[in-house]
Amino acid sequence: MPTTPAPDAPAPRRIVVVGGVAGGMSAAARARRLDESASIVVLEQSQYVSFANCGLPYHLSGEIESRDALLLHTPESLRAALALDVRTGSRVTAVDRDARTVTVATADGTYQLGYDALLLAPGAVAVTPPIEGLDHPAVYSLRTVPDLDSLTARVAQLPVDGPRRAVVVGAGFIGLEAVEALAARGLQVDLVELADHVLPPLDAELAPLLADELRSHGVGLHLGVSARSITDDGGAARVALSDGTQVVADVVVVNVGVRPASDLARDAGLELGARGAIRVDADQRTSDPHIWAVGDAVEVTQAVTGVTGPVPLAGPANRQGRRAADAMLGRRTTPQATVLGTAIVRVFGLTAAVTGASQAALDRAGIAHEVVRIHAGHHAGYFPGAQQVHVVATFAPDGRLLGAQAVGCEGVDKRIDVLATALRAGMTADDLAELELAYAPPYGSAKDPVNMLGFVAQNVLDGTMPQWHARDLDDVLATSLVLDVRSRGEFARGHLPGALNIPHTELRDRLDEVRDAAAGRPVAVHCASGVRSYIATRVLLQDGMDARNLSGGWLSLVAARPDLTRPDLTRPDLTRR
Amino acid sequence: MPTTPAPDAPAPRRIVVVGGVAGGMSAAARARRLDESASIVVLEQSQYVSFANCGLPYHLSGEIESRDALLLHTPESLRAALALDVRTGSRVTAVDRDARTVTVATADGTYQLGYDALLLAPGAVAVTPPIEGLDHPAVYSLRTVPDLDSLTARVAQLPVDGPRRAVVVGAGFIGLEAVEALAARGLQVDLVELADHVLPPLDAELAPLLADELRSHGVGLHLGVSARSITDDGGAARVALSDGTQVVADVVVVNVGVRPASDLARDAGLELGARGAIRVDADQRTSDPHIWAVGDAVEVTQAVTGVTGPVPLAGPANRQGRRAADAMLGRRTTPQATVLGTAIVRVFGLTAAVTGASQAALDRAGIAHEVVRIHAGHHAGYFPGAQQVHVVATFAPDGRLLGAQAVGCEGVDKRIDVLATALRAGMTADDLAELELAYAPPYGSAKDPVNMLGFVAQNVLDGTMPQWHARDLDDVLATSLVLDVRSRGEFARGHLPGALNIPHTELRDRLDEVRDAAAGRPVAVHCASGVRSYIATRVLLQDGMDARNLSGGWLSLVAARPDLTRPDLTRPDLTRR
Repeated sequence: MPTTPAPDAPAPRRIVVVGGVAGGMSAAARARRLDESASIVVLEQSQYVSFANCGLPYHLSGEIESRDALLLHTPESLRAALALDVRTGSRVTAVDRDARTVTVATADGTYQLGYDALLLAPGAVAVTPPIEGLDHPAVYSLRTVPDLDSLTARVAQLPVDGPRRAVVVGAGFIGLEAVEALAARGLQVDLVELADHVLPPLDAELAPLLADELRSHGVGLHLGVSARSITDDGGAARVALSDGTQVVADVVVVNVGVRPASDLARDAGLELGARGAIRVDADQRTSDPHIWAVGDAVEVTQAVTGVTGPVPLAGPANRQGRRAADAMLGRRTTPQATVLGTAIVRVFGLTAAVTGASQAALDRAGIAHEVVRIHAGHHAGYFPGAQQVHVVATFAPDGRLLGAQAVGCEGVDKRIDVLATALRAGMTADDLAELELAYAPPYGSAKDPVNMLGFVAQNVLDGTMPQWHARDLDDVLATSLVLDVRSRGEFARGHLPGALNIPHTELRDRLDEVRDAAAGRPVAVHCASGVRSYIATRVLLQDGMDARNLSGGWLSLVAARPDLTRPDLTRPDLTRR
Repeated sequence: MPTTPAPDAPAPRRIVVVGGVAGGMSAAARARRLDESASIVVLEQSQYVSFANCGLPYHLSGEIESRDALLLHTPESLRAALALDVRTGSRVTAVDRDARTVTVATADGTYQLGYDALLLAPGAVAVTPPIEGLDHPAVYSLRTVPDLDSLTARVAQLPVDGPRRAVVVGAGFIGLEAVEALAARGLQVDLVELADHVLPPLDAELAPLLADELRSHGVGLHLGVSARSITDDGGAARVALSDGTQVVADVVVVNVGVRPASDLARDAGLELGARGAIRVDADQRTSDPHIWAVGDAVEVTQAVTGVTGPVPLAGPANRQGRRAADAMLGRRTTPQATVLGTAIVRVFGLTAAVTGASQAALDRAGIAHEVVRIHAGHHAGYFPGAQQVHVVATFAPDGRLLGAQAVGCEGVDKRIDVLATALRAGMTADDLAELELAYAPPYGSAKDPVNMLGFVAQNVLDGTMPQWHARDLDDVLATSLVLDVRSRGEFARGHLPGALNIPHTELRDRLDEVRDAAAGRPVAVHCASGVRSYIATRVLLQDGMDARNLSGGWLSLVAARPDLTRPDLTRPDLTRR
């Protein structure tokens, strides 16, 4: 275990924490458990500490019935359990690093508070998009308890039988949760997203699954467009989009992202890093040896790409807080982990989750990678209720896992958690192939989807199974014979133009037909999910043909290419068996 | 990636596989995908190949309605897809290693079959316990499709309104699945287990949770006793137990374990290892360079303890088959992984799962370890429906994870899969603390139970939180002051004799009382789950007292000590919030 030498200085007698939610409160609690004698003051500018900010959309929806359930602690409960001096309504306006004091502004005035160790956990602030009319009274955000209270009150005032319309601007994690919550409250929701697909951290190829799910729940999607202006329409808000569309809504929720709340740190002269985030060392210490920082406001390093910047996630914030307290009190610390960016969201009946680098992020960073796709039951297919998990994973040429994304109805969280663990451990395709996961029919398969990912990646990386990808489609259609090895029935329900259909069970007897049709061209094989076509590809390769298998098969192709809407390209429902 | 040099010998032209279920069929299919030109013959003694043996109990219960769902492939489908020559009803009775032939016995006679490469996947055979009268017609086992058919037929013949009684002998994984299935069919089930707790691979302290669940579903438990004899009782079976009890049943299912079906290998002079399992190298090759072996019949090494022996699990069998085919055909192989023994079972509303070494296995192997226990919601507590996951994990003094076991209603499979991955990666408590798992309120917590395990283990290993354990109870009662820091209400509902109750929120003001009551003795602190008492332990330690925290708290204590049934020791329902 790595250790941090105890500092020469004595343990700090006065610890001041700025920000009383995830990272700040984790630090304060840990500091108290380690040191009974220190004075620990937590300064929180809002009226709430330790509230469950990730739970806000679920109270809006009514799924979390009691608002009190979100308020995990109060200043009184924290004083009683941990002897913390928690001061709400207390905004820190300045840090005097020489005097080691902070200036605290309250409703009753301003005072100075001295510290030996200062921890900054200021969080993030919402980015204000360039939309005219954001001051319209129907416009809300959803980041704080007061945000939630006013939005909930507005929704409660809407007539039960009259118009109940919402526009959500921004289809990130919180935006999607807001969509689901507002739909649960019976509102007609339109979702506006500047990127060309929902949930931008998800690679474009999986996003259409979420888009289908949103549409099937009546959500209007406006992708690749921005909101330009909001004007009043008889008390409602008229939102004008960049494509000329106008949508009238009784509630507009704006969530287009956050930026680090690092103004205080900047004004204090602390070193900032990428995108304005507070720079910290492996112990969460800032450029001032008496000041630590954690949470949404600090700069972290992405594990796979090495890209630096803020990552607003609750898990890392909590763990940073714990680590900062350890460092502050001279304890052995674990080195600052890089961040995988593991995240998850529920979108009606679907779950989408990511860990590590997306394909887009790898491309931006210039990191070579192979992409592997599988569609596998979340448990044994012969056990009732198996639902497909759609997984896309990336591997370095040497076999190392680089990232994974998954969408499905069940079992998505488990596979992403396993892959996040594998990623942190530096595991390879070989390692995934050999993972020994819990199998009984209600829970998994003897070859779990994670094992399958490893098998497929091994085959791709060692050349056993050359692949082609949905993105290659136009090129393939121009240069190759498409061999569709699905059954005649599947073929009849939709297929690629010019495709030759030979069911995989007949292929060995009909190789001459393939050779004749290919006429020297490469053969681009596919089936529905990639399994039957893998066998077929092997048959062709061993016959001496230049064959490749469509990664993820027809399912991945039509998911990634929602433009394939011609009548001969039936778009199956990918999310339910 | 490790590589195996291609053998000097040419690729085998004639591959013979003995056994057509998990490992054997995986090997045959992989061999075909790698080599179109080889002759591949699969010899299966039963009438069924590639059947879902793990699914048998779920067809017995009716949950898998169609028996055909269990028959994943037929010789015909395997011939069509993979050009395999699958011969059912074909028992291999001898191997002539010099001539490289096997003797195949069929209903029509016997023949010799030559091979260049032979793969043995004979599986396991049921151990026959020393019970008189096992030939009674009401006695069944549940390992094969014919077993299932006859048992299902017997159950179907039982009168709807008359007696429907079953005895299950053996409370291992399949035994518990059989209990659940028979109960689902409306039978009154009695379960007989020689060990002193159900599911012997589970450590004794978690087993009472399963026992409670079984009893609450009307199952009669007979633990620490054996079945001695079975006699006829008007067509039913009268089962006499070693404790004098007699139970009359219309169906008796016996599952007391399996042993490697290694007779053929032994007779062929192949080297056997521990407990009669076939010895193989990292490529699954036996002591004969032309013979490979996989599955329940081979010797594997337990990852944590280094103990060798057979492990009858479907996952390893499938992967061994794939690896054996690679090796046989001169492909790069991954080295043989040691086996973690990851396993899972559903017991009515509960799930129990294990990975790595149990405490009992570590004790037997003389491996020093610390035990850490947590009880944590399977997702955020403020989100409705959170269910407690009870996790017990073991760590080496240097922090390495050694094993984990969990019981709960939801989320058990996910945590054990993450821990199995961490175990395979050699992760430590520090690594678990920093794992970045997917968090949104419906799925987990910002501090996932796996992170919490890491935090607690760090505190135990670095001395921040000394522990005491349920097994220490008698010693603690004799030597220490028990300080119960739960609320007065919790204390009133049940507490340890002589315990001093000071709610943790009052402790700092009442330290003198503790010191007086302790009178120089150590202080054994506890609360319900170990969280509040951790804070209290820290307060006492920093005050200079000799304090320890009860690992897992009252929940673990009453779970591990079902003997604590005095009126003052209320036994809570641990499995539902």
